[in-house]
Amino acid sequence: MKLPVSTEWLLHCATTLAQLEPGATASAARLAEYYDLPAAALAKQLQALVRAGVLAATTGPRGGFRLGRRPEDVTLLDIVEAVGGAASPYECREIRQQGKGALPPETCRDACVLAVKMHEAHQAWRTSLAATTLADVLTSLPEWAVGRTRSKLG
Amino acid sequence: MKLPVSTEWLLHCATTLAQLEPGATASAARLAEYYDLPAAALAKQLQALVRAGVLAATTGPRGGFRLGRRPEDVTLLDIVEAVGGAASPYECREIRQQGKGALPPETCRDACVLAVKMHEAHQAWRTSLAATTLADVLTSLPEWAVGRTRSKLG
Repeated sequence: MKLPVSTEWLLHCATTLAQLEPGATASAARLAEYYDLPAAALAKQLQALVRAGVLAATTGPRGGFRLGRRPEDVTLLDIVEAVGGAASPYECREIRQQGKGALPPETCRDACVLAVKMHEAHQAWRTSLAATTLADVLTSLPEWAVGRTRSKLG
Repeated sequence: MKLPVSTEWLLHCATTLAQLEPGATASAARLAEYYDLPAAALAKQLQALVRAGVLAATTGPRGGFRLGRRPEDVTLLDIVEAVGGAASPYECREIRQQGKGALPPETCRDACVLAVKMHEAHQAWRTSLAATTLADVLTSLPEWAVGRTRSKLG
């Protein structure tokens, strides 16, 4: 059970972009350099965050990425699910309805209790990630962090 | 983010074995037939549940698998983690310490807040799965289920 390796990239890039001055942007190349990441792969993943509305992309000589919403309106779940982590890790293939022990269809109108419990666990995971916003993350950073990020990336 | 496909197999097999009469066993071949599953692959996975203490294996002509503990002492988490689902889906590679924006080591003594939040979500998932035992699952089955399972598999 693995999330894409780019999950870490994008959690950090979104946190970094949330620290820039209003209106400031950073290009995929700058962000890749900032974290020593493969630039083309990162650019592709940043576009996934744009499609999800987490980031906005501007073009032109001063173009790049900035947050698409206020930091208090972006949750960790928004980011994780935008880059391929949206599906439940448990796949129910209804094996209860196959083989010599197959249950008749009329007894399977309700979802299997095992699938229900696995779904509940996934929802607990989602709820946990939805409870933290980028604004919360910024609050937890040391005082010097924002100034440092702006001077290194701005 | 995917759990092994065998997760469904083993949740069902353990639930089924929990319904047998005390002392009764079922072989991997019988269980494979019961759910129309690949027998060799299932046998291997059942051994993982034996190593975790969820199942016990007996040998001899009447040998096979039975529950290794009381149904109230086996949680869904025990089963899911026994078959390869134990690692957190999020991998923190400490990218905060690499590239042009690399944080100095002395500022990274505490875990990254993003890794902490991803860990908390994984713990919420684990807590949810640990809250349901096989005894709870049996309680939720219709009245006729245990008799049917015993007659078909016993």
